[in-house]
Amino acid sequence: MTPERAYPLNAWYPAAWGHEIGRSLFARKICDADLVLYRRQDGVAVALEDACWHRLLPLSLGKLKGDEVMCGYHGLVFNAAGRCTFMPAQRTINPSACVRSFPLVEKHRLVWVWPGDPALADSARVPDLHWNDGTEWVGEGGVAASLRCDWRLVVDNLMDLTHETYVHSDSIGQDSITESPFEATHDDKTATLTRWMIGIEPPPFWAKQLGKPGLVDRWQIVRFEAPCVVVGDVGVAPTGTGAPQGRRGEGVNGAFLAALAPETATSCHYFWNFVRRFHREDEELTRTLQKAHVNEGRGLYDQDFHVLEAQQRAIAANPRAPFYNLNIDAGALWARRLIDDLVARERDPKIAAE
Amino acid sequence: MTPERAYPLNAWYPAAWGHEIGRSLFARKICDADLVLYRRQDGVAVALEDACWHRLLPLSLGKLKGDEVMCGYHGLVFNAAGRCTFMPAQRTINPSACVRSFPLVEKHRLVWVWPGDPALADSARVPDLHWNDGTEWVGEGGVAASLRCDWRLVVDNLMDLTHETYVHSDSIGQDSITESPFEATHDDKTATLTRWMIGIEPPPFWAKQLGKPGLVDRWQIVRFEAPCVVVGDVGVAPTGTGAPQGRRGEGVNGAFLAALAPETATSCHYFWNFVRRFHREDEELTRTLQKAHVNEGRGLYDQDFHVLEAQQRAIAANPRAPFYNLNIDAGALWARRLIDDLVARERDPKIAAE
Amino acid sequence: MTPERAYPLNAWYPAAWGHEIGRSLFARKICDADLVLYRRQDGVAVALEDACWHRLLPLSLGKLKGDEVMCGYHGLVFNAAGRCTFMPAQRTINPSACVRSFPLVEKHRLVWVWPGDPALADSARVPDLHWNDGTEWVGEGGVAASLRCDWRLVVDNLMDLTHETYVHSDSIGQDSITESPFEATHDDKTATLTRWMIGIEPPPFWAKQLGKPGLVDRWQIVRFEAPCVVVGDVGVAPTGTGAPQGRRGEGVNGAFLAALAPETATSCHYFWNFVRRFHREDEELTRTLQKAHVNEGRGLYDQDFHVLEAQQRAIAANPRAPFYNLNIDAGALWARRLIDDLVARERDPKIAAE
Repeated sequence: MTPERAYPLNAWYPAAWGHEIGRSLFARKICDADLVLYRRQDGVAVALEDACWHRLLPLSLGKLKGDEVMCGYHGLVFNAAGRCTFMPAQRTINPSACVRSFPLVEKHRLVWVWPGDPALADSARVPDLHWNDGTEWVGEGGVAASLRCDWRLVVDNLMDLTHETYVHSDSIGQDSITESPFEATHDDKTATLTRWMIGIEPPPFWAKQLGKPGLVDRWQIVRFEAPCVVVGDVGVAPTGTGAPQGRRGEGVNGAFLAALAPETATSCHYFWNFVRRFHREDEELTRTLQKAHVNEGRGLYDQDFHVLEAQQRAIAANPRAPFYNLNIDAGALWARRLIDDLVARERDPKIAAE
Repeated sequence: MTPERAYPLNAWYPAAWGHEIGRSLFARKICDADLVLYRRQDGVAVALEDACWHRLLPLSLGKLKGDEVMCGYHGLVFNAAGRCTFMPAQRTINPSACVRSFPLVEKHRLVWVWPGDPALADSARVPDLHWNDGTEWVGEGGVAASLRCDWRLVVDNLMDLTHETYVHSDSIGQDSITESPFEATHDDKTATLTRWMIGIEPPPFWAKQLGKPGLVDRWQIVRFEAPCVVVGDVGVAPTGTGAPQGRRGEGVNGAFLAALAPETATSCHYFWNFVRRFHREDEELTRTLQKAHVNEGRGLYDQDFHVLEAQQRAIAANPRAPFYNLNIDAGALWARRLIDDLVARERDPKIAAE
Repeated sequence: MTPERAYPLNAWYPAAWGHEIGRSLFARKICDADLVLYRRQDGVAVALEDACWHRLLPLSLGKLKGDEVMCGYHGLVFNAAGRCTFMPAQRTINPSACVRSFPLVEKHRLVWVWPGDPALADSARVPDLHWNDGTEWVGEGGVAASLRCDWRLVVDNLMDLTHETYVHSDSIGQDSITESPFEATHDDKTATLTRWMIGIEPPPFWAKQLGKPGLVDRWQIVRFEAPCVVVGDVGVAPTGTGAPQGRRGEGVNGAFLAALAPETATSCHYFWNFVRRFHREDEELTRTLQKAHVNEGRGLYDQDFHVLEAQQRAIAANPRAPFYNLNIDAGALWARRLIDDLVARERDPKIAAE
């Protein structure tokens, strides 16, 4: 029943939005590891193994005491490094008594965790999500926590936007997507899918954002950064105003951001945002766009979640092994290959040394 | 945990009542295969494998387009033969892209499916359920979909009506059933259990249908046709009016009809009806009898469902392997043997050739 | 997935409070065996295997007929010894047709069952729970049926009361517990943990029961009797009045009683009571104390149940094998060793013979 591990451990994964973590204990599972997260009094975020050294009770059921966590069963206390600093009814503390402490970095409004070897955790390698900073681009996203699908199904979903035509036919889907040519490129860390639709009718969502009549050029430039980040540069501009040549000034430009963390082999956390460079001061629009994506089952991303979870159930139920692929899957296939390479290198040190 | 397959695949099983299938996509699992069912524009019913060739999303989450099904994820289209007729963003269609199409026959108000080798599907072999046609006999039944028991437990239940005395003591049960002799006969395709109760008090249900005072002769002639159909000829007539000799004109005669389809090893679909030859024009009586059988947990068949599901749970929990049998199980034992033979012949071609 | 059996079978376990069993059929699983319990017309309690010999339907879905049980499917009848006394439609009864009958003893308000070899069931070996009799001590308890944890986790919980400081900090917990020395003793059938806290502030619960100002001496003398009973002699007395020397007359003295039965490897039934020797006539206090322990999730024991079930989930999820132990675990470790010895002796007759 348990499939092979399908994620690299030596990587930065999003554990939480910064605003999710505060001065209380917060539990989340990442890469099959139970974590308890909190902030120290100086605001620095901490992630410890969520199981007491003594009898395994989740520490998240205990209490935060200053910068330390006290177990809710027998009162053992662990500091932010995971070291036990108090045992009930005994003076000497077993020096081996500790829980794992996980490297954390807070960047681009997300708290990133490194589930693998702490010695390899290099904070310079946190993926670039500067679109999320609230400076040049604005937007408010959310998290689909414990989404019941393999995280790679979300990568597939985002790297192939032809699905918009069928899953999101009422908002951003249109036949032009499947009818337009696209280009898939890649290097040793990223895969990119680029599609330009020239001189088309804009779909309802973009027509409204643009607010101008007439045909448009529409673009989708979706870039995967291994292993867990996807950024989609999307937008429309009146056709003939030079958008394909780089002059987007007449158009509207957004970016969808996805940071993914495997929870288990068949579930994940999907941290999403949709940011924009147009009408940046319009807070009402920010709220409207957030609600357009996730809205009690009726949003754009809710449609994806519904499909992704149904697909996962079908995979579990279906003995047929590999997916068959179409031309449209080129971007997803490169993304999956980059993930598979990272997993293979961790498994086999000889590959890693190459 | 997974028991051996206990049903033949090369057989006609009921997939749905005719009225369940229309111009929308309908999902049902038969013999561990997920099916999507719909009617073409000309009314003919179709059953396809309910998993897109491309990425396994259930086709039942997609849309019906004319006589074809469009996947709800990437828009692949499959015709009623299961052949892919459209792929997004590509001109040439992979000729191997198809989903299984299952032979279907609509007969006796039911849609029958053949889960095995299509080359062997002979529509002349659909079981006889003419009682269901609404001509000579009238009645309205229903379906216990996804009943949580091995379908063979339902066969056991119907082939031994002594259970009526204990499970249905308030309606059709009576001590006379267990006290009367019975005869079990069989041939290579059917098993029949015949019981006559001569000169007895009628139980409440039959007393009401007969509407005459006095003692009755009661009969139960239950016939199993391998692998999945049971028809029970039942009724009462005033004693001494010749019913045992074939003159039933003074009595009331009904028939319970059961068509069974395995869903999984531990669940099934039970298509039932109770039809009658008396008061055929009384539509109120038709509704009353339907409700007497299934009525939000309080009907006659609801009592059976309760027992059957409890029995299945007990089998799962209990390490003790074979059932012990009583004389009353003679009919069920023959029925099971016919089923076992069909399964064995499919497994071993040498047996099949004999 | 299935862990090794971790309970002896040849032992008396509590199956029910006496008041739970009457003239109707009552189902409970003990040591992975499904039982149906009822009282004969003379009031004597009976426990039979809860699965009909014929087709496994739980007998608890049937009916009580005098001193016998009638199966709800085909009417087989079993007497209080488990012997079949009626089969439908046949005169001769298969002499091997029977269900297991389990030795039962009713004592100290509980019905005790012996799941092992009936020949070894010696009613003199029922554990001593005379505190429960309602004579010298008074109190009303309850049962946490199907508590979702290994029964030994409850033993751990009761044999180490330092957890009171952390789990029950609002009622009976206080730092004095973890700061005071304790002594763990044992013999071949019992393990005892004794702790005296001299000249301390009483915690809220005991301050209220004592009703006198000033410092107290507080005691906790907790005794495990293998395999399934724990009795805790607890109380406070004004300091300096001689309680540690045996003169408790100025104080208040209670006892918590726990009788445990494994249900499965990961669930149990926890029969509890809290009895007292003070204000014995105060029935309002009896009800108040009962509610203080279990009260829709807000009572003292509810706090324990919450911790125990979380601990069990953590054990299931956590690959790390053995618990690490602290000094405070001395009592629990002896208790576990006594249990392990009983299990080992049952497994290996050579050990048993020693």
